[in-house]
Amino acid sequence: MHYKVCLLGATGMVGQKFVQILENHPWFKLTSLAASEKRIGKRYGSEVEWIVSSDIPKYAKDIEMVPLDPKQIDADIVFSALPPEIAREVEPKFAEMGFAVSSNASAFRMHEDVPLVIPEVNSEHLALIEVQKRKRGWDGFIITNPNCTSTMFVITLKPLMDFGLRSVRIASMQALSGAGYPGVPSLAITDNVIPFIRNEEEKCESEPLKMLGKLVGDRVEFANFKISASCHRVPVLDGHLEAVWVEFEREVSVEDVKKAFRSLKPLDLPTSPREVIVIREEPDRPQPRLDRDTGNGMSVVVGRIRRDAWGIKYMVLGHNTVRGAAGASILNGELLVKEKFV
Amino acid sequence: MHYKVCLLGATGMVGQKFVQILENHPWFKLTSLAASEKRIGKRYGSEVEWIVSSDIPKYAKDIEMVPLDPKQIDADIVFSALPPEIAREVEPKFAEMGFAVSSNASAFRMHEDVPLVIPEVNSEHLALIEVQKRKRGWDGFIITNPNCTSTMFVITLKPLMDFGLRSVRIASMQALSGAGYPGVPSLAITDNVIPFIRNEEEKCESEPLKMLGKLVGDRVEFANFKISASCHRVPVLDGHLEAVWVEFEREVSVEDVKKAFRSLKPLDLPTSPREVIVIREEPDRPQPRLDRDTGNGMSVVVGRIRRDAWGIKYMVLGHNTVRGAAGASILNGELLVKEKFV
Amino acid sequence: MHYKVCLLGATGMVGQKFVQILENHPWFKLTSLAASEKRIGKRYGSEVEWIVSSDIPKYAKDIEMVPLDPKQIDADIVFSALPPEIAREVEPKFAEMGFAVSSNASAFRMHEDVPLVIPEVNSEHLALIEVQKRKRGWDGFIITNPNCTSTMFVITLKPLMDFGLRSVRIASMQALSGAGYPGVPSLAITDNVIPFIRNEEEKCESEPLKMLGKLVGDRVEFANFKISASCHRVPVLDGHLEAVWVEFEREVSVEDVKKAFRSLKPLDLPTSPREVIVIREEPDRPQPRLDRDTGNGMSVVVGRIRRDAWGIKYMVLGHNTVRGAAGASILNGELLVKEKFV
Amino acid sequence: MHYKVCLLGATGMVGQKFVQILENHPWFKLTSLAASEKRIGKRYGSEVEWIVSSDIPKYAKDIEMVPLDPKQIDADIVFSALPPEIAREVEPKFAEMGFAVSSNASAFRMHEDVPLVIPEVNSEHLALIEVQKRKRGWDGFIITNPNCTSTMFVITLKPLMDFGLRSVRIASMQALSGAGYPGVPSLAITDNVIPFIRNEEEKCESEPLKMLGKLVGDRVEFANFKISASCHRVPVLDGHLEAVWVEFEREVSVEDVKKAFRSLKPLDLPTSPREVIVIREEPDRPQPRLDRDTGNGMSVVVGRIRRDAWGIKYMVLGHNTVRGAAGASILNGELLVKEKFV
Repeated sequence: MHYKVCLLGATGMVGQKFVQILENHPWFKLTSLAASEKRIGKRYGSEVEWIVSSDIPKYAKDIEMVPLDPKQIDADIVFSALPPEIAREVEPKFAEMGFAVSSNASAFRMHEDVPLVIPEVNSEHLALIEVQKRKRGWDGFIITNPNCTSTMFVITLKPLMDFGLRSVRIASMQALSGAGYPGVPSLAITDNVIPFIRNEEEKCESEPLKMLGKLVGDRVEFANFKISASCHRVPVLDGHLEAVWVEFEREVSVEDVKKAFRSLKPLDLPTSPREVIVIREEPDRPQPRLDRDTGNGMSVVVGRIRRDAWGIKYMVLGHNTVRGAAGASILNGELLVKEKFV
Repeated sequence: MHYKVCLLGATGMVGQKFVQILENHPWFKLTSLAASEKRIGKRYGSEVEWIVSSDIPKYAKDIEMVPLDPKQIDADIVFSALPPEIAREVEPKFAEMGFAVSSNASAFRMHEDVPLVIPEVNSEHLALIEVQKRKRGWDGFIITNPNCTSTMFVITLKPLMDFGLRSVRIASMQALSGAGYPGVPSLAITDNVIPFIRNEEEKCESEPLKMLGKLVGDRVEFANFKISASCHRVPVLDGHLEAVWVEFEREVSVEDVKKAFRSLKPLDLPTSPREVIVIREEPDRPQPRLDRDTGNGMSVVVGRIRRDAWGIKYMVLGHNTVRGAAGASILNGELLVKEKFV
Repeated sequence: MHYKVCLLGATGMVGQKFVQILENHPWFKLTSLAASEKRIGKRYGSEVEWIVSSDIPKYAKDIEMVPLDPKQIDADIVFSALPPEIAREVEPKFAEMGFAVSSNASAFRMHEDVPLVIPEVNSEHLALIEVQKRKRGWDGFIITNPNCTSTMFVITLKPLMDFGLRSVRIASMQALSGAGYPGVPSLAITDNVIPFIRNEEEKCESEPLKMLGKLVGDRVEFANFKISASCHRVPVLDGHLEAVWVEFEREVSVEDVKKAFRSLKPLDLPTSPREVIVIREEPDRPQPRLDRDTGNGMSVVVGRIRRDAWGIKYMVLGHNTVRGAAGASILNGELLVKEKFV
Repeated sequence: MHYKVCLLGATGMVGQKFVQILENHPWFKLTSLAASEKRIGKRYGSEVEWIVSSDIPKYAKDIEMVPLDPKQIDADIVFSALPPEIAREVEPKFAEMGFAVSSNASAFRMHEDVPLVIPEVNSEHLALIEVQKRKRGWDGFIITNPNCTSTMFVITLKPLMDFGLRSVRIASMQALSGAGYPGVPSLAITDNVIPFIRNEEEKCESEPLKMLGKLVGDRVEFANFKISASCHRVPVLDGHLEAVWVEFEREVSVEDVKKAFRSLKPLDLPTSPREVIVIREEPDRPQPRLDRDTGNGMSVVVGRIRRDAWGIKYMVLGHNTVRGAAGASILNGELLVKEKFV
């Protein structure tokens, strides 16, 4: 079983993570790298400023870059690491032409008929695909994964939904790689924290409510609680760390929460981690540098689960460019295959 | 007007900040440096591993260190930068012998008859001094300042008290200097965040309630709301940054909060900043490296004041070893002078 | 005595340092800020992304920016913080029109008739000004200061010249601010060293030989030794640290070297430090964070002077954007005034 | 083929790297962990403050720690990660009792009859083992590997020996892990470089001359050139980067040097890298974070090979706790097996 894969936006930070994770993928074979005008016809290896590891995977070096044009591409599935303003233009063209597009871009996440999916959280939202195709008259479709910061805490909120969520507050300490490359200047962040990431709090307060919402007929009824986020950039290479406070509709113990976390099972997909939520019992974990690669970067790691005056607070950590970006889109792509949308 | 000052615990990180801030102080003249056994009789300059600036202030270099023994010390006021377990033993001896002790240590902060004071917040709690002397039969007394993390957000909560506080949550991003020297190993914190600081959350959830409480007869009635803190160490040299969420008893606007912040006036003391709370209007401030020295490290800087579903959230930053430690004790000392307790 | 000063290239990193250092300058009054087309007519405070300290100096905020056009500028002296390719076009226009231009740019440093000057090292090279005006038929002139890395070690080599230099090798550990803003991406330099800085080694191997050369008639005879440099970027905000190896024509002791260093006297200029070369005797100094601000950033700090099999090795440190850039140009401007070239 | 292995000094930073590298080793089975008094009888997993990766290898967790006493240990080979002052006492006791000791400690490196070995450089020095046993009357013996900083550049000097070395200068930029744990305080090294590492320059100037020396009868004739080192600590987790200048007895081209580097072949041992010296052709490599794990941390990576006025200069990088410590001792142990000393 091999699917031909096209990647849109291959040279950026997240694009590189796609290329890295897709090396030796059992189902997907990356055959097309689509890039902006000036790069067309050039080899990936000579164009990319590779920064995510020591060397570009050999398999990708000689792939010739093609235009962002669905007519010139032959693929079973399209992954998109495009910036939102380009995604807005380009992704619909691919969907219209019949491609299955699994996008990391924010452009269509909140569109009513576009699934915003974390496989372990709301795979049933894929049913929106048919709605989307019907409404838009497309042969193909777009599905999306959430922003990196939401991803981590939404995975932990999912198994807590049964307790009845009343309020969620999160304070994020986000990694540099979340800003892409060149991204955050070293002069800005050395010996410093920057307590602002454009649009991030807005995303963290809206996207989760869609994902944790219920599919009713042709649409998603948003989850019925509120979120308040405070987002901060810290001098860490990879791994978003988040402090989370949750109030519930009923009394919930630390043990209840742990049990719920352990109940969230991985799907049987190539990129699934063995454990979706890993619980660390040490008093000072999770830590970005030590825990971000847990489950090849696809697990989220929680710790310090404790009670406060109103509910429960805990820490959650995940790898922002793996579970929070490239790995998320790829997992969504795998889900599409399994569910026979591709 | 010159007061002779003795400093207990002069060689540690906070001790060094005392020595630095007291250089050229208009009222206080540091004449005694008290240290542990092995250092007695040696010159400060040859014993201290000076790390808070390029050079030890000249005035302090040749001061000979004396024992932690009140009988051998001549001073009008005693500052303590001792670790808590030593403070517990030593500070009462000084107070008993008639010294006015202004301590940065945590040992006595929560004792019922010991003032826990930030001058701009609860100077009226100094009335406990008489209670303390009477109860304990001491000729002198101990007053304390809060832990560094509480200091910053308590200063901002004070002017909000009139709105009726219902709940407070804070996420701290704390500087390395808060852990003293050698403190946090570079191998532990490089490219990392450590989401745990021993006893810090407990202090942040209790000390503020005392400071914001009301003096009723011989005791303080604690403030009637709850706090939930999540404390984290980040790779920043100085400056604690905190995300704060507040729920109020009534509807409060961003403009109300700013007005309240501006209403908190500095006292007329040598170490007082010109503005107690400085409001930054930029979207990405306060930042530790850029803002920690505001008001010579004695202002707290707030920013990003915004509404959420339940109340107000904002960022606050302060210099942890100045406003949060040495500067705090010195300001308390100045208050003692002004209020004629010394 | 007040001279009107125009600054070319005011919004970049080095431009900002000029603005900062010129605040309250006793001789110079910054009245014109010249910038690129799109900024003309706008206020400095609204255009600059200020990063060198907490706040823009008040005096500069409302200065309206003017074009890089000598006809529209009224000034007694012009400082240039332009990038080299623009400096190459713009500076000659100013010089031709009669302005005295003190430039930090590399464009003209190695031109035969352009003085490349560190006041304490080779002020006599200012005699080239007359040559330059004559040859080029200009009413004004250009003088330059060297690149930041050369500056530090050239200041230390000057007093060693009498011992007869045979060879010099330097390994630099250069600060992030040397690359300007945004400059080095945090993702590139966190937990890393980058052993390459474009053109830097070439500059370090050529500029010093001009500065340490002898003025003979209308030209400078270059110094008669060779330099080999290896330049590296480290995660430090400010302060270039350099390891230097020197071979001499004759036997030289550590004490000889120290004596020579102490013999280099400051000029009597407003921006001169009290000591040009500060010698630290501790085994582990100079260090960038602790020593870069020595002499308000205008001293160079040396340490670890020791013998090896062939000569002497030592460390030298200096503030790259002060002594190595803005402060250097300003000191040169002061020298122009003192020597009556302005 | 399985050899029972005992590790002395198992809980420190380098000890942990031994435990990590020995997991799944094809020849060696770590069965004894020897530690100081207070830890005896306790399980490794409960005693060690594990910091070199996310989790302790499972195999090691339950190993019970034993005393540093040869009588209580059953092993075919003993690795030592002891601090030098303890190694001085303990290692001879093991050697005397018949154990083969492969030590990373500096205690015996420069003893005339103790091999100081990098397998690819001077495996023939193992002949000293017989001398050592004979002279000291021991049943076993001690062999050592060099300090981490020397290791990297000595590996590159070996293939250059044929050109005739005249002088070598090195400037090191050394990683934090080289100082062990807790090691360098974060307050000391953040936004800083420390230009001093105790005894490091002395080791770098002596150990290489022994390794590159010739075995003549019962002793090593030291190599006949001089080294001058300047050693600096930089804020990097792992990976020592070194700038090297070499003067030769004859004209040597960059191509000659590359060819020589390529000629150094790996031995056929389990821990050998596929390439001993990896040459990077990019202008800005090697970099610690990108290149330290090359060859599982057992390759050294060179780059920027270029001529200067007197010879050749280049950069070399190696993983200090792998190729420079634990991996080095293990490779030496493998060599002992292959050469039938065990």
